Amino acid sequence: MPLGQRVGDKSDSRYCGVETEFDDDMPHVLASNVAGGFDFIVAPLMDPTYRPSLESSGGCGASVPPFAGSDLVLSPSQWSCHVVGKISSWIDLDSDDEGFRMDSEIVLKQEISWASHLSLQACLLPAPRGASCSNYARCVNEILQTLNNMQLWLRIPLQKLEDNPMDGSSDCLNVDSWEWWNEFRLLCEHHSQLSIALDILSSLPSGNSLGRWFGEPVKAAIVHTNTFLTNARGYPCLSKRHQKLMALFLNHSIQVVISGKPLHDIPVGSSEPTANHIDNNVEGIPRHPLRSYLDYVGYLYQKMEPLPEQERFELGYRDFLQSPLQPLMDNLEAQTYETFEKDTVKYLQYQRAVAKALLDRVPDEQVATSTVVLMVVGAGRGPLVRASLQAAEETGRKLKVYAVEKNPNAVVTLHSLVKLEGWENLVTVVSNDMRCWDAPERADILVSELLGSFGDNELSPECLDGAQRILKQDGISIPSMYTSFIQPVTASKLYNDVKSHKDLVHFETAYVVKLHSVARLAPSQPVFTFNHPNYSANKSNKRYKKLRFEIPSDTGSAIVHGFAGYFDATLYKDVHLGIEPSMATPNMFSWFAIFFPLRTPVCVRSGSPLEVHFWRCCGSTKVWYEWSVTSPYTLPIHNSNGRSYWVGL
Amino acid sequence: MPLGQRVGDKSDSRYCGVETEFDDDMPHVLASNVAGGFDFIVAPLMDPTYRPSLESSGGCGASVPPFAGSDLVLSPSQWSCHVVGKISSWIDLDSDDEGFRMDSEIVLKQEISWASHLSLQACLLPAPRGASCSNYARCVNEILQTLNNMQLWLRIPLQKLEDNPMDGSSDCLNVDSWEWWNEFRLLCEHHSQLSIALDILSSLPSGNSLGRWFGEPVKAAIVHTNTFLTNARGYPCLSKRHQKLMALFLNHSIQVVISGKPLHDIPVGSSEPTANHIDNNVEGIPRHPLRSYLDYVGYLYQKMEPLPEQERFELGYRDFLQSPLQPLMDNLEAQTYETFEKDTVKYLQYQRAVAKALLDRVPDEQVATSTVVLMVVGAGRGPLVRASLQAAEETGRKLKVYAVEKNPNAVVTLHSLVKLEGWENLVTVVSNDMRCWDAPERADILVSELLGSFGDNELSPECLDGAQRILKQDGISIPSMYTSFIQPVTASKLYNDVKSHKDLVHFETAYVVKLHSVARLAPSQPVFTFNHPNYSANKSNKRYKKLRFEIPSDTGSAIVHGFAGYFDATLYKDVHLGIEPSMATPNMFSWFAIFFPLRTPVCVRSGSPLEVHFWRCCGSTKVWYEWSVTSPYTLPIHNSNGRSYWVGL
Repeated sequence: MPLGQRVGDKSDSRYCGVETEFDDDMPHVLASNVAGGFDFIVAPLMDPTYRPSLESSGGCGASVPPFAGSDLVLSPSQWSCHVVGKISSWIDLDSDDEGFRMDSEIVLKQEISWASHLSLQACLLPAPRGASCSNYARCVNEILQTLNNMQLWLRIPLQKLEDNPMDGSSDCLNVDSWEWWNEFRLLCEHHSQLSIALDILSSLPSGNSLGRWFGEPVKAAIVHTNTFLTNARGYPCLSKRHQKLMALFLNHSIQVVISGKPLHDIPVGSSEPTANHIDNNVEGIPRHPLRSYLDYVGYLYQKMEPLPEQERFELGYRDFLQSPLQPLMDNLEAQTYETFEKDTVKYLQYQRAVAKALLDRVPDEQVATSTVVLMVVGAGRGPLVRASLQAAEETGRKLKVYAVEKNPNAVVTLHSLVKLEGWENLVTVVSNDMRCWDAPERADILVSELLGSFGDNELSPECLDGAQRILKQDGISIPSMYTSFIQPVTASKLYNDVKSHKDLVHFETAYVVKLHSVARLAPSQPVFTFNHPNYSANKSNKRYKKLRFEIPSDTGSAIVHGFAGYFDATLYKDVHLGIEPSMATPNMFSWFAIFFPLRTPVCVRSGSPLEVHFWRCCGSTKVWYEWSVTSPYTLPIHNSNGRSYWVGL
Repeated sequence: MPLGQRVGDKSDSRYCGVETEFDDDMPHVLASNVAGGFDFIVAPLMDPTYRPSLESSGGCGASVPPFAGSDLVLSPSQWSCHVVGKISSWIDLDSDDEGFRMDSEIVLKQEISWASHLSLQACLLPAPRGASCSNYARCVNEILQTLNNMQLWLRIPLQKLEDNPMDGSSDCLNVDSWEWWNEFRLLCEHHSQLSIALDILSSLPSGNSLGRWFGEPVKAAIVHTNTFLTNARGYPCLSKRHQKLMALFLNHSIQVVISGKPLHDIPVGSSEPTANHIDNNVEGIPRHPLRSYLDYVGYLYQKMEPLPEQERFELGYRDFLQSPLQPLMDNLEAQTYETFEKDTVKYLQYQRAVAKALLDRVPDEQVATSTVVLMVVGAGRGPLVRASLQAAEETGRKLKVYAVEKNPNAVVTLHSLVKLEGWENLVTVVSNDMRCWDAPERADILVSELLGSFGDNELSPECLDGAQRILKQDGISIPSMYTSFIQPVTASKLYNDVKSHKDLVHFETAYVVKLHSVARLAPSQPVFTFNHPNYSANKSNKRYKKLRFEIPSDTGSAIVHGFAGYFDATLYKDVHLGIEPSMATPNMFSWFAIFFPLRTPVCVRSGSPLEVHFWRCCGSTKVWYEWSVTSPYTLPIHNSNGRSYWVGL
């Protein structure tokens, strides 16, 4: 029984599971928990008292491992849809005791082999125990090499325990638990079937420390009953910080698992009014002892704000890598124009910018006598022509528009638009490349929308430099300036998608992507700035920028899979447009972020700086970026000579 | 005129060059220096006053860069054999002045393009200037992507300058110069055409710091005249430490270049008696002003100790990667037996061990009545049979030998050896695998030579465990114990050879190699130990070892390309055999070291530990190693499941 649907959220349903004890009677365990409202159980597969080395190898017949029933006790679909295998938690593959280590390795392999035979979707691996987990990781890595589709969820406590309630030992836990995960995953080379189940306890680390996990492959959050507080009516509830965290988990499709004994004594027959469910008790089936915890999680899910329209539109694009457009080299398709033309916010900003420019250009006393020459360079199917004419109408300025477009297919639409709107006396359509067009007169205002997610990455600088000839000396370019920004991110999903191609090219390519499961590790910083028109002596559009990021000390260490890139553009004076998170124009959907991957993810220790270099390089036929990291350690130059990724001129 | 030949050194001849000033008259510069005894010149190619940005771009005709003459002034072979291009030393690609940076980039590209047009073998790049050299490295990396065969020698001062004599500025030089090289080379991804020219000055860093360079691709040592001292007769000479360093350079085929003004006033017509040459002055040609420095270098070369026979034999194998033998899976060839049988030292050690064992086994009073049963398991063509019989003769003990060999080709030779030597009554030849042979009696002594460079890597443990059935309970195994060792090394040449295969498999393979151009960064540490016979309860030959190396603090930072592996074996009691450097058996040539590469070289900062994990894994048909590094940062597990490299059972 999923937690319910939120308005507009068509992504995976949210499920809630429950952690159970070892029980020979698996059918009963499953049936009682499903009847109690849980979607799946996280159940031990093998008797926890079993130790291979204590078995007497009686004769030549191999002994039967004490699994909880044969594969026949549940149907295949019950095994695969409702059971997550819980690997024996006593195992310790980094124990100093070699015999114990050997036993642990045997049991781990037996249980995973059994789970895999049952086609379980996932197994929960116990948390590492000591400061080191190298041998555990090696063994899991060996298993991963030949595993079927099953996921392995490594259990990681979100916060190091002050006092371990399990066995009272806490001295081995004085490390940031993220470090366990990081060492484990690096040894296993970011294997895509290795993921995380976070143990949520009553104390939570800082927001920055928590934030790291949203760039990691967290599949489950195990919430212990002792994490819950008690509300005025005696029901379990969570602290505000825990509630916020749960909302984030639910928003990132992380499954919730309830664990532990019931610690809240619920009056029989009563039902928490905020929990929107029918009490099963009335049917005569005994109410599940953890039902009130499940109900509370369902309540949290259902009370989440519905997704705004823009986010609903973008749901299908989350963390999906796209190659950036090459609008200069390729002609865009009608579908692409169609999509981008719907971005009303963007064109309103352009209209505002043109209006302000017109007011500056033509004082009120010259309104009757002056006609402003405005050229839309890269007019596409006409949205900027429309925005400019609306600005003229709004300000009462006279306008003469040239609509310059190099894509002959878009020119067809432009002509028909002009006829349809009756703009024949106002608009001249020019079918030419702005860098070559021999204009009959010079423009007062040059309007363009050539910006990519990273600002200059669709070659706006080269195009506008080429068009500058047709602008009057004192003319205005809209946009007049734009700057690119980057910030380091943890993005396991994106990294693994890039890696899956198994080649260098994909690691040296920038991608357009709707970032969702990423951790933004430091505020973004400006990279390259371009001004238009550009009358400076050095007209080169080559750039080199060295950046130094500091990851906040309360984050702890973090892994950097690459850089998220954005832009901000000044259209005219105070009218800006952009996607840099801290100052993004709201409700615009024309641009996702850009993502520059790193060939080797970089671990940045708390307090040590991340030094990054970005180059914009220009050749005779192409423009490309190169990038690298020189601190905390040095990576090779990425995309040398634009060998993997470039934008054609 | 090479520096002369050393006895037995058939590797590259040693040449000596001279650094010159810019001169338009290249033919004269070359002729006078060659006449003066130098083999090549390191000469600027372009007028150092030239700055591209100061050139008036007069009209459409491109200006001609001020090179030292056209390509016609020297013959192609003169250019390529006698001229190293010296790139303008004023360039600074990491200058804060963008215009200067642009000029530097243009000139660097022009000069390398010109040098490449002339087919020069190498160009000397000026040393980086500031603390950072990222942009310089990016530009060189760009050039390297499309360069012909030319080498680029990056000039690096061996010691940071206390007081820079060039321009008086020294504040920018407070970094370990190795760090410059390291950042540069990492950014350029260990490009095989990027190498080093070391500037040798009067002060030298510590021996450990110097040692790092012998694992790096140093091609030239530029010795400044002010580095030389003055001997009693007024001639230049070098300090003892400098002499030792020069000998190391010469032993590593590093070319010497003399640089600077003559600072020693040599009496006209006189000739230093220790320098073994004919003074050119007598021919009427003026003596080269730097001739006495050249003579001194020649003198150092000629006075080097001749190479011992073993090293001469090994010359051709230096730093050449070989796949380890698979003697268990494959049958060795006659040629291989032939080579190894010549290792008299090894068989003498075996003879000593057998003799001691015989004396222990048979007290003097039982000599007449006791016959010792000795089995050579893996007898090959019989060298251990011979050594054992000699030990029996030497000790006067009676011996009955079984020679067990699985290679049927070697058995042919064994039979004929027995006949030839008249050993029919002493030796029984058994054509079988020691793991399967059904022996007619049990042995007192089991003798084997199954050890590889890393001890257990040719599966001696598995073979001897299999043969243990045929040993008496109180029997003796020779060897009785062996241990593998590793140490971290800098080995650029080996790393690049592995990398040149462009696949994962070669990075996850261990190689047998005569290590020469490597820097051993820390003393070796023991890894796995095996004892024979092995009556312990846990008979597994799986092993796991975690090691922690500390690189001496006076080394500075260093790069680890992989691990050199060795073994030491106890044959019997105090008779040992091995290649671990600190206790290697002298004059043995049967084993080179083993080399475990790392997929990503690891930079270890001074004072931070290197944590390494080695596993010996056993499957039903193969044995393999896995290895990884977890500190200073974590690498993926190498050779997971033996996917790239394994030894067949």
